[in-house]
Amino acid sequence: MPIPAPNLFPPFNILRLSHTELRVTDLAWSRGYYVDTLGLQVTHEDTHSLYLRAMEERGHHCLILRKADVPSVGVLGFKVWAEEDLNRAEHWFHAKGLPVHWIERPFMGRVLATRDPWGVPLEFYASMDRLPPIHQQYNLYRGVKPLRIDHFNLFSSNVDAAVEFYGEMGFRVTEYTADEETGRTWAAWMHRKGGVHDIAFTNGTGPRLHHTAFWVPTPLNIIDLLDLMATTGYLDNIERGPGRHGISNAFFLYIRDRDGHRTEIYCSDYQTCDPDLEPIRWDLKDPQRQTLWGAPAPRSWFELGSVFDGAALLDSDLKAQPIIAP
Amino acid sequence: MPIPAPNLFPPFNILRLSHTELRVTDLAWSRGYYVDTLGLQVTHEDTHSLYLRAMEERGHHCLILRKADVPSVGVLGFKVWAEEDLNRAEHWFHAKGLPVHWIERPFMGRVLATRDPWGVPLEFYASMDRLPPIHQQYNLYRGVKPLRIDHFNLFSSNVDAAVEFYGEMGFRVTEYTADEETGRTWAAWMHRKGGVHDIAFTNGTGPRLHHTAFWVPTPLNIIDLLDLMATTGYLDNIERGPGRHGISNAFFLYIRDRDGHRTEIYCSDYQTCDPDLEPIRWDLKDPQRQTLWGAPAPRSWFELGSVFDGAALLDSDLKAQPIIAP
Amino acid sequence: MPIPAPNLFPPFNILRLSHTELRVTDLAWSRGYYVDTLGLQVTHEDTHSLYLRAMEERGHHCLILRKADVPSVGVLGFKVWAEEDLNRAEHWFHAKGLPVHWIERPFMGRVLATRDPWGVPLEFYASMDRLPPIHQQYNLYRGVKPLRIDHFNLFSSNVDAAVEFYGEMGFRVTEYTADEETGRTWAAWMHRKGGVHDIAFTNGTGPRLHHTAFWVPTPLNIIDLLDLMATTGYLDNIERGPGRHGISNAFFLYIRDRDGHRTEIYCSDYQTCDPDLEPIRWDLKDPQRQTLWGAPAPRSWFELGSVFDGAALLDSDLKAQPIIAP
Amino acid sequence: MPIPAPNLFPPFNILRLSHTELRVTDLAWSRGYYVDTLGLQVTHEDTHSLYLRAMEERGHHCLILRKADVPSVGVLGFKVWAEEDLNRAEHWFHAKGLPVHWIERPFMGRVLATRDPWGVPLEFYASMDRLPPIHQQYNLYRGVKPLRIDHFNLFSSNVDAAVEFYGEMGFRVTEYTADEETGRTWAAWMHRKGGVHDIAFTNGTGPRLHHTAFWVPTPLNIIDLLDLMATTGYLDNIERGPGRHGISNAFFLYIRDRDGHRTEIYCSDYQTCDPDLEPIRWDLKDPQRQTLWGAPAPRSWFELGSVFDGAALLDSDLKAQPIIAP
Repeated sequence: MPIPAPNLFPPFNILRLSHTELRVTDLAWSRGYYVDTLGLQVTHEDTHSLYLRAMEERGHHCLILRKADVPSVGVLGFKVWAEEDLNRAEHWFHAKGLPVHWIERPFMGRVLATRDPWGVPLEFYASMDRLPPIHQQYNLYRGVKPLRIDHFNLFSSNVDAAVEFYGEMGFRVTEYTADEETGRTWAAWMHRKGGVHDIAFTNGTGPRLHHTAFWVPTPLNIIDLLDLMATTGYLDNIERGPGRHGISNAFFLYIRDRDGHRTEIYCSDYQTCDPDLEPIRWDLKDPQRQTLWGAPAPRSWFELGSVFDGAALLDSDLKAQPIIAP
Repeated sequence: MPIPAPNLFPPFNILRLSHTELRVTDLAWSRGYYVDTLGLQVTHEDTHSLYLRAMEERGHHCLILRKADVPSVGVLGFKVWAEEDLNRAEHWFHAKGLPVHWIERPFMGRVLATRDPWGVPLEFYASMDRLPPIHQQYNLYRGVKPLRIDHFNLFSSNVDAAVEFYGEMGFRVTEYTADEETGRTWAAWMHRKGGVHDIAFTNGTGPRLHHTAFWVPTPLNIIDLLDLMATTGYLDNIERGPGRHGISNAFFLYIRDRDGHRTEIYCSDYQTCDPDLEPIRWDLKDPQRQTLWGAPAPRSWFELGSVFDGAALLDSDLKAQPIIAP
Repeated sequence: MPIPAPNLFPPFNILRLSHTELRVTDLAWSRGYYVDTLGLQVTHEDTHSLYLRAMEERGHHCLILRKADVPSVGVLGFKVWAEEDLNRAEHWFHAKGLPVHWIERPFMGRVLATRDPWGVPLEFYASMDRLPPIHQQYNLYRGVKPLRIDHFNLFSSNVDAAVEFYGEMGFRVTEYTADEETGRTWAAWMHRKGGVHDIAFTNGTGPRLHHTAFWVPTPLNIIDLLDLMATTGYLDNIERGPGRHGISNAFFLYIRDRDGHRTEIYCSDYQTCDPDLEPIRWDLKDPQRQTLWGAPAPRSWFELGSVFDGAALLDSDLKAQPIIAP
Repeated sequence: MPIPAPNLFPPFNILRLSHTELRVTDLAWSRGYYVDTLGLQVTHEDTHSLYLRAMEERGHHCLILRKADVPSVGVLGFKVWAEEDLNRAEHWFHAKGLPVHWIERPFMGRVLATRDPWGVPLEFYASMDRLPPIHQQYNLYRGVKPLRIDHFNLFSSNVDAAVEFYGEMGFRVTEYTADEETGRTWAAWMHRKGGVHDIAFTNGTGPRLHHTAFWVPTPLNIIDLLDLMATTGYLDNIERGPGRHGISNAFFLYIRDRDGHRTEIYCSDYQTCDPDLEPIRWDLKDPQRQTLWGAPAPRSWFELGSVFDGAALLDSDLKAQPIIAP
């Protein structure tokens, strides 16, 4: 199916992705990984959870780590422009026959909880506790010097349908991968905040979270992280990279925590805020699509993901395959 | 005066700054400077003008160099979200008693020409010719590898009034400099597109253009440009830097062409799209305001600027002085 | 076998590796690759050869490309401290029963041609034409900005014997790979000039040249080269990397020209000039030996190399295998 | 005076500069500065001294901080090739009528203490305690990530005489500054280990230590250090830079500790090991000599230095002045 035209006047105004909650089985291990190694800053800590923010963020958190018996993803959070957008969102999801609840969440104002048609738990809010800036407290920078959360990437059993649903909400496609044979969309990158994506969908058994990405200053910070992880016991957590994506043109690294949650370290994509930005089309079999320099991704990268709490899995009926490393 | 609250629902939707027109006295010299040395790409060239874009831009131009007998600035251009925003802009400027004209401009759709209350020539448009992406044609990258136009900075005879006027249009203050004694605003940085600024105002004889800024990938590209300029005859065009700004946290370099037009090479400021982003206040006498590392700017940087075509100059009555290098 | 103690007072004083001659089948193609893409500077050009130097070198050439029907390596060149070292070298090689000839070479003074016991063609000289410095002519920098030739790496059918032979000449081992089972040396890195190596030996069918390496300023230059090669028709010439070596701690990229000659782009190894520097031992099966970050090298990297003109090939009887990518 | 020809067969073989001892008035403050901020590693600590090494060094120390009532420099240390070089050095200094003593120094083998003709305290050794490598323990890297000591720079009351004396010892000139009018040498850079210098001399009241330099990986590490110092209370310790030197082509930063001891952070000079390397001549009035990009050094940089313990000061009779910032 062709990529639908962007909805430039969506029913409610989503500003940007905001945060995710990962359920992890060993909070102390996760602290060593996300805080001491990646360099996220702790903004709240108790016996069963950790709230983290990146260096240039002033909202209270972009990542919640919550102790659980089994790894999963609790929610994907989005910030809307204004309080009235929450009410508009409530009506829109309700009209779609999707569940809507107003819930209480620490450090946040009104929170609208809902799910997309495939069961992905979503939450929307307009206000979250604001913290003082720390981006010029250079003694706090550690690890990969994460500056901000950048995007989510999800496995989807029907990327065309996901693009249509999220497109209606105002997410605009910047790049996409088409399967030549069936004409269907194999993957798509969609944004609200003016980068290549706030959310992306990749064909596969879904819904599952493929990864959460953090923006870092330069490729050298990614090299620093690799050196650090490789010599502090995290060698096996390095999955793919470093490299330059064909899609998005970003410099990247993929790592996976002990619960299998994948993080992308990401920098240097491009500005996309023009409403008339033309999506870039890639063929699924283009070897430079994944990595501009030609190296294919490993099988794990195409197959493994994190389940969402309460969402049933569905296989995709699109069986087209990308190039996978042997 | 205190910084006014942001106008989150402005009368028309300005997406971002878009382009400027510089009147230059020697087009061949300017080509050597902006194209061969800085690395902007020529998109149109004739005997009296050059149209340029940066590497990740798809709009036809972000900089017009036009042959003239005397250097000046022709216009500051802004892209709006949709065609109807142009009509709304027309009404708003007209209601303010400001001149409005629909003009013809090559490579652009409908263009609304107007001036701000101090005579700065502005133009707004929704559509400009779109060009194929070149951000992955790495053989075209040259000089400082400019990725996109980032912002304008203007001398203003009344920064408080400028902040109010542009604030009404929806520009939101991210950082500002206050004069402790008078309580007045000495400088302010205001954005639409989610960085520290699309436009800034600095106290001084105005209106004049202080500089136009381009975003580059990393500080190393700025070091490369310095090495190149210093050894290809452009030593005297280096004015200030490199350094880290206190305000904006950006890494910067200022250079001036032979007509006195100043360019800032700029990278690594931060994301500001949250509507509840709290402006950061700096004291005029804070030595880290200009440069986080303490080095004051030279006198030329505070005094020299480019006049706008057709705008009369007015001195500022705010006489407070920043720290100037001896 | 244990690594022999360094010979701190060798029979003649080799200063550093100097140059190599590659026989190539299409000089125009090689010019596009080594000059326009890698960024080496042409110092002499005629219909059948190209002489190149890197940016901080003042000797006339570090790489000679010579037109031939079949690809091979003509010679490995070394600079000695003084003219009398050439005479001492002549006696030493002669005493070893190896061939010695005084030959004429353009742009060079007296040249002693010989071969090592495995037939590798070597040449030694004390003086070569000197050229004016260009390291501050920043408009000449292109491609990966190669600064200087760094080292040779050879497949050797008997690494222990090679280490002994070159060690006697004063090359000192900085790092080596041991085969746990047999106790034999599987690979060794040996230097004269104070970096990790001027020459290295890797177990395999030999003698063959594995690669010639050039030193570049930072890892970002290697990323720039990858972006450039990937988008200018050289995608298939990228073989391995980028990555950090365990051995040498250098950041690297391996590329191969159309004749199969391999180049390593290399930076950030360490200073080794202390005569009491302790060699670092690595186990052949250590996954971080090749790449600190864990990614194994591809099979081609372990198997393919360039033959030396006039040298017969011999298999190694050491059959131990490193970790190879599937 | 013309630069003398290099002595390629010196009376004893100095390998490289090795270490310096700084007398400091507040050891705790100095620890915060050199260890926590610059990132040198503590190898020994007691109540009155700190021994430090940089990340790729295996010798026990490159910097000794010793508690004293008054700041001064205790000694400049050099490593020689072999034990017999110490004996040769003893004879050579003795023959010059200079004091020679065999002294005991912790963590070192035989140490020959002497002074140059201007009273600079020097010590030579062949062996120092060796420590395990830490260059791949990336969790230890901090601050500016100092890799190794690079050079000393001294004020000299007679640079021509210093060049002759040190030249006789085998130090070779790589670059120098001539005073056009008098034909005398105003400054000179001399090396043993193959970089632009192990030691340099600058015209002025001497002997005094101008600075000790440490080599770091890339210019970005210097930017990181500036950000860190500027936001952790060391703003006033930043003296000059960052910038690119004309002489040496190195990227630099100068900082001064609370006792006035100056450190240069330095990277990316070039390889100089060729015995026939032609010295590069600079004119004292060349504005690109100090900084390739044109910015002059501040007055403090030309006037302030650290006295050597036990050395009397002498004014220079060469009154030529470089360009000094206003």
